[in-house]
Amino acid sequence: MSELHLLSPLGFKASAVHAGLKTTQTPDVGLLVCDALATAAAVFTTNKVFAAPVKIGREHVAKGRLRGVVVNSGNANACTGRQGERDALSMCSTAAKLIGCASAEILPSSTGIIGHLLPMEKMTSGIRAAAADLGDSAEHAVRFADAILTTDLTRKAAAIEVKIGKQMVRIAGVCKGSGMIGPHMTLHATMLAYLTTDARIAPPLLRKLLARACEGSFNSVTVDDHMSTNDTAAILASGAAGVAVSTKKEIERFAGALEEVCKSLAYQIAADGEGATKVVAITVSTAASDKAAKAIARAIANSPLVKCAMHGNDPNWGRIVSAAGLCGVPFDADLCKLTLQGTAVFRRGRPLVFDAAAVSKKMDAREVGVHLQCGLGKASATVWTCDLSREYITINADYHT
Amino acid sequence: MSELHLLSPLGFKASAVHAGLKTTQTPDVGLLVCDALATAAAVFTTNKVFAAPVKIGREHVAKGRLRGVVVNSGNANACTGRQGERDALSMCSTAAKLIGCASAEILPSSTGIIGHLLPMEKMTSGIRAAAADLGDSAEHAVRFADAILTTDLTRKAAAIEVKIGKQMVRIAGVCKGSGMIGPHMTLHATMLAYLTTDARIAPPLLRKLLARACEGSFNSVTVDDHMSTNDTAAILASGAAGVAVSTKKEIERFAGALEEVCKSLAYQIAADGEGATKVVAITVSTAASDKAAKAIARAIANSPLVKCAMHGNDPNWGRIVSAAGLCGVPFDADLCKLTLQGTAVFRRGRPLVFDAAAVSKKMDAREVGVHLQCGLGKASATVWTCDLSREYITINADYHT
Repeated sequence: MSELHLLSPLGFKASAVHAGLKTTQTPDVGLLVCDALATAAAVFTTNKVFAAPVKIGREHVAKGRLRGVVVNSGNANACTGRQGERDALSMCSTAAKLIGCASAEILPSSTGIIGHLLPMEKMTSGIRAAAADLGDSAEHAVRFADAILTTDLTRKAAAIEVKIGKQMVRIAGVCKGSGMIGPHMTLHATMLAYLTTDARIAPPLLRKLLARACEGSFNSVTVDDHMSTNDTAAILASGAAGVAVSTKKEIERFAGALEEVCKSLAYQIAADGEGATKVVAITVSTAASDKAAKAIARAIANSPLVKCAMHGNDPNWGRIVSAAGLCGVPFDADLCKLTLQGTAVFRRGRPLVFDAAAVSKKMDAREVGVHLQCGLGKASATVWTCDLSREYITINADYHT
Repeated sequence: MSELHLLSPLGFKASAVHAGLKTTQTPDVGLLVCDALATAAAVFTTNKVFAAPVKIGREHVAKGRLRGVVVNSGNANACTGRQGERDALSMCSTAAKLIGCASAEILPSSTGIIGHLLPMEKMTSGIRAAAADLGDSAEHAVRFADAILTTDLTRKAAAIEVKIGKQMVRIAGVCKGSGMIGPHMTLHATMLAYLTTDARIAPPLLRKLLARACEGSFNSVTVDDHMSTNDTAAILASGAAGVAVSTKKEIERFAGALEEVCKSLAYQIAADGEGATKVVAITVSTAASDKAAKAIARAIANSPLVKCAMHGNDPNWGRIVSAAGLCGVPFDADLCKLTLQGTAVFRRGRPLVFDAAAVSKKMDAREVGVHLQCGLGKASATVWTCDLSREYITINADYHT
């Protein structure tokens, strides 16, 4: 996934400018545009409090066709009432006029503080400036990726090339997310992700494959388990590679590649979680059901006690096992086995003798692996999170409205 | 609730000693004994991973009769397999022999680190020393209250005197809890709470009233929402006041007083939450159902983002409203009203203009009130939590196994 970028799939252009919505001098309004009407699908937050752009976005993507995405950072346009909806629509119509398409062919997205009306003068100027600078270079891709960042410390991008039949298609994506990360997105997630591909694919299939890819990626990452009002993952398929995805084999190839891009992006969110010093990869296997596996992995990932122990390189496995038991799904300590960074620490209800200092040293790494075997069934799930540090508190206690 | 203490209800004695289970020179093994067989009830953690003393305790309290409680801090006796169960039984039999009752009339409890076998030599010596020093003075009550503490910074006790008919009965309690606090206890909760009363009351009724009192108190407090393997709340009724609780009016009086004692104890847990600088009292009203009200209040209370904002005195109400929408129960931002420390900040889907600096100043207090009116029904719930500070991280990242 080296030289490829968001605009490597044929048929896409992007741009971004600093319109003054963020206080930092970085891009905060971006446009992603397909040269022609693209097949599109999107998944959104399941929070009952959802932002105006999510409401408008659901409507605009319903027919499975989009020309582009207009996005801003620095303001979530959430909890902003009717005016917020008018502003989200206005973002679309401004972008649509400049691109030459219908308003309803634009997906709006916003991320940032909740409860403030968008500064529409800045926004409109920003969209105009962005539209005047559309391009398909790596620099354009980078600027767009930067325009969606908020408390993120790193730019997040992934791309892949995959052979479908005898030809190559490309799938690429960018995303943002660092805090307020606990997405549960369904078809009808404040992480934002935008994916592009030049494969040709029917809308219902694209929707299905996006939903499936999200489940094992974005919906499997948590920083603070606070599901946002604005979570959105959208994919646009230009078809410009002239390669159709329709046979079972083609679909599996495409689905695998899409999932790989989404997983890479999701991992980057965990790694850049607010205050994070490491990724914690929690795998639960031999669980009673897929739902149980995911519930247990999420319960472990969301325990502040587990996350603090990870921060302190503390092999305090009792916190992990107790978290597994608290989420209401089948679990029996007497049947399980827990491995921490490769060392078995607990098996069949009994603590194992292990070198705590050595395990602690192994936990002082960029990634810590937790593997819990339940001994109850055949289901498994992996969830990625990060440690909980003093820096998380600093970021979130001092980030004033 | 001033001069009364755990041993003010007639018919009880207690004691505690430092047996060497905790590294601090404070009591770590305690005995609470009723002069005669007491009516008893207890609720325990619903975590599927539960400690050996919880398993044994459930069996021992099943008949609704107990002579006493033996408890230690410094070691949870959880995830310790069969040996753990033998050790919990051994605690009971040692105490029973010294008191002169059956083993099954003793409720065992433990709190501390998970996954380590109890040091039974120290434990047995401790129980013997405690049994030799039983008494009903305020000092005895204080020592017992101290013996159950772990990372707690404050002793937690409450007591009340209530007139039933024409006579007075007393209800008192002590508890511990600071971290790993997210109890969901049912009849069949690491917070520990022990309650005494000298009223006479039938076991099934006592069980029912304890469960009810816990719901609005211990089960409504959260520090980190990590339900423990050891949570236990037990009540012993000596009957020594010679006052029966049986008519509807008597039951309501007793139930109200019991709930008051439990609420005071639960509040003390929130106030002493690990790293806490303040209590956050979250009231959700006009919700669709009791379940919805509690779910929303808990979702707000458990959001690290909300807790950090509370720590920073930041009136960042978007985090509160978005937390209300993420827990899967009916909620509509367009119908709600949010009041933060007495100031309305959001109503009917729209942000209200308010003096953020003034509200921030009001939030710099020992207790911050959050009141969310849902506009959907008649149900309400209050949940108590604390803010999330750097100190929580320090305590839990550096508390090594």
